[in-house]
Amino acid sequence: MGNRPTIADIAKRVGVSPGAVSFALNGRPGVSEQTRARIVEVAREMNWRPHRAARALGGSQAGAVGLVLARDPHTLGSEQFYTQVLYGMQETLSARSFAVQMQLVRDTTAEIALYRDWSSEHRVDGLVLVDLQVDDPRLTVIDELNIPAVTLGPRLDGALPSVWADDSEAMITIVDYLAALGHRHIAHVAGPPVYRHTAQRMAALRDHAISRGLDVGVSVPTDFSDAQGAAATRTLLSRRDPPSAIIYDSDLMAAAGLGVALELGVRVPHELSIVSFDDSVLTRIVHPQLTCLSRDTYALGAQVAEVLLKAIADPSARQSVQSETPKLVVRGSTARAATQR
Amino acid sequence: MGNRPTIADIAKRVGVSPGAVSFALNGRPGVSEQTRARIVEVAREMNWRPHRAARALGGSQAGAVGLVLARDPHTLGSEQFYTQVLYGMQETLSARSFAVQMQLVRDTTAEIALYRDWSSEHRVDGLVLVDLQVDDPRLTVIDELNIPAVTLGPRLDGALPSVWADDSEAMITIVDYLAALGHRHIAHVAGPPVYRHTAQRMAALRDHAISRGLDVGVSVPTDFSDAQGAAATRTLLSRRDPPSAIIYDSDLMAAAGLGVALELGVRVPHELSIVSFDDSVLTRIVHPQLTCLSRDTYALGAQVAEVLLKAIADPSARQSVQSETPKLVVRGSTARAATQR
Repeated sequence: MGNRPTIADIAKRVGVSPGAVSFALNGRPGVSEQTRARIVEVAREMNWRPHRAARALGGSQAGAVGLVLARDPHTLGSEQFYTQVLYGMQETLSARSFAVQMQLVRDTTAEIALYRDWSSEHRVDGLVLVDLQVDDPRLTVIDELNIPAVTLGPRLDGALPSVWADDSEAMITIVDYLAALGHRHIAHVAGPPVYRHTAQRMAALRDHAISRGLDVGVSVPTDFSDAQGAAATRTLLSRRDPPSAIIYDSDLMAAAGLGVALELGVRVPHELSIVSFDDSVLTRIVHPQLTCLSRDTYALGAQVAEVLLKAIADPSARQSVQSETPKLVVRGSTARAATQR
Repeated sequence: MGNRPTIADIAKRVGVSPGAVSFALNGRPGVSEQTRARIVEVAREMNWRPHRAARALGGSQAGAVGLVLARDPHTLGSEQFYTQVLYGMQETLSARSFAVQMQLVRDTTAEIALYRDWSSEHRVDGLVLVDLQVDDPRLTVIDELNIPAVTLGPRLDGALPSVWADDSEAMITIVDYLAALGHRHIAHVAGPPVYRHTAQRMAALRDHAISRGLDVGVSVPTDFSDAQGAAATRTLLSRRDPPSAIIYDSDLMAAAGLGVALELGVRVPHELSIVSFDDSVLTRIVHPQLTCLSRDTYALGAQVAEVLLKAIADPSARQSVQSETPKLVVRGSTARAATQR
């Protein structure tokens, strides 16, 4: 157990110089992306880790990065997306001897207080900001504290380095698919509109429904809980003119909505099509299984880690990378719209 | 923002001496449990945190504790229990300025390697060990590394401090309830028998079914994935003599099993009763909702944190605390056994 592999061992195995290994493992330029990836892979296989003291001399202080989720403790349930992201981040970062400090807090105020503490105590070398808000108070705090940080979510021009996704495009993909199935009246059970990605999806549905000549696409905001997802579904299905398709911002709410349809005797997919914006194991254990947008969240976590490592190595770099576009996975919860309305 | 509350501020608010506050917040004896709880509560409300430097002088080195989960990255999904536990731990520990380092790794070998690294790098002041194995290689490593640690799971006599649950008693509660409903043929879709709690549940079902004069209670081991939970259910329901009730070791597998029953046209609860060992949001979004054992996992996390803080303050203490016994919550997935078999 005492025999840690050295830089030289890794260099030998990969067939490159020890210098190249050192550059690669410290995130410095000088090796190709391909070689770097191979070196990191081998280092991980050999369970290589630098001595913390040695790394500290290289400039990093804490050897850790932070990921904070603001969630009410009693409405946890929609965090599986972030567990996968965390896993992807941890595997990439632990190969470079960084820990990921994932912390759950009650709200944005507590999140900001934590960033101030972490900063004053030098607990983290970098941060990942998620759940970006329309007017996000965290951005000025990060600026003030001068901690390297990466945002994960919608594109924020000119701000921090980011791994971003196009939520408008994603919404349009779903609306086009439902329109092709003959649906004209499409509703949306949304998250809280304080989030940028929620606001983008709401705007995209409204605008795209109009441009395609569909009925106005209504979005019902919720707090992301299964209870509010169910309540929103009950409201929509109890209208005189109920939608023939509902898009849900999370698979937890989509599963809850499916339950409400069963409860009201609305047959899915024959009378109601359901699409979820997320693809966790939840979408596959309900019946019918849920049509959804799917992406490799584990790989997304690794991508976030790479961008953050670059930001830590060179705080002046403002890399902005688009994440893989989610793909529509069609399962049993969607079908052609019934001809009669 | 710069005005941190001081020990004196807290003392004034609570109406005790500053010395009592200091004792309470540093986990030292000298104040009653009630006063300590009140002080911690007020400190949390006032967002009090000690300066790290001051705490380091008090003996703690890292200001962090570790919680490692060994999971395959592609079969994540059953970790909601631990997310709640983590949240409860973090709220209790952050009031005393400890961070919780939650790390996902692939297997026990990687978990042990991480403990060695954390130990050599003084990254953590204590550990929480979960998913205890029948012959657990981690226990000797913890002993060797001499890190304060608490186990969460079944009782381990004479070993580390623990917060323990009685899984045999829990299984007996379920079997007695099903027997009272007239079920004689009860099966069990279990986790991997390498886990102590799984092995205890299997033994309890077998022994208790015999002592109550029921048919032999068969347990089918799985890897905890929804896929294996579904496969085990298919196997059980395809037998010539299928069970009239199935107990699942996780709610993810129970939900997957419910899906298989629907697929095979077996009506739940009329032809098959389903009970889950866990109560996450999953049990409430499927139809019918799942009868399950429920406990306050958030409070459990807080309890684990308290025991760990005591172990860190006094490594010779070997406190062993029984956690709240889970309560049976009856929902729509269980009913009287059909009279014909």
